[in-house]
Amino acid sequence: MRYHKVPDETIRRLPVYLRGLCSFPNDGSRSISSQQLAEVLHVKSPQVRKDLSYFGDIGTPGVGYDIQKLKKHIRTILRLNNTHCAALIGYGNLGAALLKYTGFKTFCVEISAVFEINPRKIGRVVQKIKIEDVSNISSLRKRGISVAILAIPALESQDVTDKLIDAGVGGILNFTPSYLSAPTNVKVVNIDIGVSLACLPYYLPVGA
Amino acid sequence: MRYHKVPDETIRRLPVYLRGLCSFPNDGSRSISSQQLAEVLHVKSPQVRKDLSYFGDIGTPGVGYDIQKLKKHIRTILRLNNTHCAALIGYGNLGAALLKYTGFKTFCVEISAVFEINPRKIGRVVQKIKIEDVSNISSLRKRGISVAILAIPALESQDVTDKLIDAGVGGILNFTPSYLSAPTNVKVVNIDIGVSLACLPYYLPVGA
Repeated sequence: MRYHKVPDETIRRLPVYLRGLCSFPNDGSRSISSQQLAEVLHVKSPQVRKDLSYFGDIGTPGVGYDIQKLKKHIRTILRLNNTHCAALIGYGNLGAALLKYTGFKTFCVEISAVFEINPRKIGRVVQKIKIEDVSNISSLRKRGISVAILAIPALESQDVTDKLIDAGVGGILNFTPSYLSAPTNVKVVNIDIGVSLACLPYYLPVGA
Repeated sequence: MRYHKVPDETIRRLPVYLRGLCSFPNDGSRSISSQQLAEVLHVKSPQVRKDLSYFGDIGTPGVGYDIQKLKKHIRTILRLNNTHCAALIGYGNLGAALLKYTGFKTFCVEISAVFEINPRKIGRVVQKIKIEDVSNISSLRKRGISVAILAIPALESQDVTDKLIDAGVGGILNFTPSYLSAPTNVKVVNIDIGVSLACLPYYLPVGA
């Protein structure tokens, strides 16, 4: 289900809430106040209440949130109750690191296909996955894979993005430094490592 | 110099503008209108004008911006005119990929020190850099390194962050899924790869 008028920032915080809730012991129906939840999550409690209010009444006034129910609720909102298979495009240094990245497991997202353009890498088995030629991207729709991670050189990024969209991919995590042109029904989330690092010197104290 | 009341979002866009400007040929004093600049950068032109207006009058009404001057100006604002040395903490899969990452070069940021907790990695030379014990982090101040990249397990992240801050580090690019507690004069930029991927299923069409 896609809710209306939910800001991207709220959707972006929900997995953080979910991860925070997962750190609580699974011991039944323990409740947590929005204040306690906010402390654990290092956000302000009105923020938590506002974010969660987009999705109906899940808290009990004066009591708070049932931890297990809230976890389940957030998973349902984010559609993370079942494992989502993702395709990794590019098995360079970053791609290899992403394939071994353990942080996807909390969210039931799993890389189940790897694509490459380099003939020397195609056919190799990495983490039990056989690297495929990018031309196989067209098979994603029938394999039920609708999320992709792009970790390839900038030059090839739009061409591969077009192939992904043609293959029914609706969500792309873009590690390339390129702007990707995509229709409005395809969600692109950019992780621009270079830009993120380049911002830091601005904030240093004068003289540093 | 640190300007007053400049939103983080503006600072975050400046390296993107800079990278876009760097893609233009270096052929003297060619000008570009904010409209053209916006097209290249895939943002709206009022956004470009507003972002740049925080830093004084750099454009000429009716003419636009001098490309070379604007590049220089943005580099000065971001303090990227000279190479900044950064420390990489953690030489796991992601750390190794970041050390080889070529996208930092555009911004004159260079990883010049690598730290590890694993004795089997300490002493190894990678990309011409000798991996040091994390206890050496205390030497960063005298080595003039005030930016760090954190690519270590979540459990160790606050402890290492405290060490970095004690050593005078003022900017941290945090790849761990942890919230890092830091004083207000230390800038932490988070790249949460798991969360970024976990957002995508929400946006998929129903049935995907």
